[in-house]
Amino acid sequence: MGIIVCGTATLDTVETPCKRVEEVLGGSGVYAAVAASFFHPSVQLVGVVGADFPPAYAKQLENFGIDLGALTRVENGKTFQWGGKYAEDFNVRETLFTDLNVVAEVQPNLDNVDTDAPYLFLANNPPQLQLDAITQTSHPKLVMCDTMDIWINTERAALEATLAEVDILILNDSEACLFTGDANVVRAARAMLRYGPHRVIVKKGEHGAISVTESSFFSAPAYPLMHVTDATGAGDSFAGALIGYLAALDDTSEAAVRRAIIYGTVVASFNIEDFSINRQTSVQFSDISARYAALQEAVRF
Amino acid sequence: MGIIVCGTATLDTVETPCKRVEEVLGGSGVYAAVAASFFHPSVQLVGVVGADFPPAYAKQLENFGIDLGALTRVENGKTFQWGGKYAEDFNVRETLFTDLNVVAEVQPNLDNVDTDAPYLFLANNPPQLQLDAITQTSHPKLVMCDTMDIWINTERAALEATLAEVDILILNDSEACLFTGDANVVRAARAMLRYGPHRVIVKKGEHGAISVTESSFFSAPAYPLMHVTDATGAGDSFAGALIGYLAALDDTSEAAVRRAIIYGTVVASFNIEDFSINRQTSVQFSDISARYAALQEAVRF
Repeated sequence: MGIIVCGTATLDTVETPCKRVEEVLGGSGVYAAVAASFFHPSVQLVGVVGADFPPAYAKQLENFGIDLGALTRVENGKTFQWGGKYAEDFNVRETLFTDLNVVAEVQPNLDNVDTDAPYLFLANNPPQLQLDAITQTSHPKLVMCDTMDIWINTERAALEATLAEVDILILNDSEACLFTGDANVVRAARAMLRYGPHRVIVKKGEHGAISVTESSFFSAPAYPLMHVTDATGAGDSFAGALIGYLAALDDTSEAAVRRAIIYGTVVASFNIEDFSINRQTSVQFSDISARYAALQEAVRF
Repeated sequence: MGIIVCGTATLDTVETPCKRVEEVLGGSGVYAAVAASFFHPSVQLVGVVGADFPPAYAKQLENFGIDLGALTRVENGKTFQWGGKYAEDFNVRETLFTDLNVVAEVQPNLDNVDTDAPYLFLANNPPQLQLDAITQTSHPKLVMCDTMDIWINTERAALEATLAEVDILILNDSEACLFTGDANVVRAARAMLRYGPHRVIVKKGEHGAISVTESSFFSAPAYPLMHVTDATGAGDSFAGALIGYLAALDDTSEAAVRRAIIYGTVVASFNIEDFSINRQTSVQFSDISARYAALQEAVRF
């Protein structure tokens, strides 16, 4: 019951009020694959990097058990570089630069992927690329996809075509409101069901997440974290842990998805305690279980 | 186990993207007392109105079983008038005018109040007035108070003196951050415990509420309302229902407070479905129970 994660592997430069780090390991695919690996032994990362992608970063990912056979290395190319800056409360992020480099030049290649893996997560990417990935896999049991404001604004038609093939759509509250033109997040989430996904999960950062289907509504709390170091990758960690848990159980029922969302919340809460995937390297499954139990207690009434 | 609600009774003019209403019944005390009355038969409203306060409004309140013996009517005075305007998403409110009138001239009078009532809610008011009300009551079992940005900015010392005498502080997320200078709401809530309250409840509007003590953390969802008509009074309805439920059970344990917060969430969700207290006039307890059950289902995992 393997997982394919299609997304980016990047070199990130991040500024927070406390610190600045340069060219650290990042990217939607990286964060999601690492998070999924806590739950499932078979995670394949599909993406493109340049010749400058440090072997030490690849080694870090392999230490999480992630299969890099479909992470194309472009010998004359440079890795996607992203720069961002956070203000005091981490709710607002300013993008300082986006150098797509090899991501703009070379298509991800699924030839080396076990396309029978039934769980497919399409992390943020141009919608046409996401649709191509769906087409190249063998009728996965579950397709989950993320998206971003830039594609809603510039690739609306392609995004709608992709959504028609997707089971679970996962996106931020501001993106749900942007897509639908509706300021009410619950209404916006429900409206997006009409585009194809049978479930829409809206990430609300420090306010948790909601999940809607035609017949269900789930409200997940955020983990009450007192110290945030770097919010980069929180959403991708959330999504990766979520699909990792579903794949591990091979269960996509409402009950399983609710538990998966809480596991996603927990893994994201660890991720933002340090830059890059640094915190994840020391997280044990018992740490994850402890925060899961704390969230159970936090919502009990 | 009666309840005293000290707060305002006002004539409100409210503009929303859909409609404008003039001089409708409003005020922190009114919303809170009506909400409390769903749970408890003995609710006394302490406040000051002018000669222009419509008898029909007083009658409306009496129909909820609210005791108006301590709602002072100033014969040559005018009732507090407030005007506000909401944008599309109801998260941002613009105050158009605030004519305090009799509220600036005449102190609320607790002479006609059964000051043995052990549950005291101090709705938003100048902190010195809140402290006076505590002093005039006979060691209430529970004192809960609300406050507002204006008092944090202009009456800090008086507010701190009041907080030292309060059991539960209830305020908005932006106010908690303003008071503490901390953008992290969880940290801000915990920091406010140092000022005296043994519990701080932070209202987050469409994102629900959190409640913290030295040893507990509770995260309450918002009710997933698809249609909001007027958000005025939501916070006061939330607080009123909360103290109404606690007084009805005469129980201030963690478990009781958690259930009370959910009842507060439910009553607030009805309040914002119409202007003034219009929606509350047709709410049955079975309606409240149905939404309570829906919230139980919404957080279950």
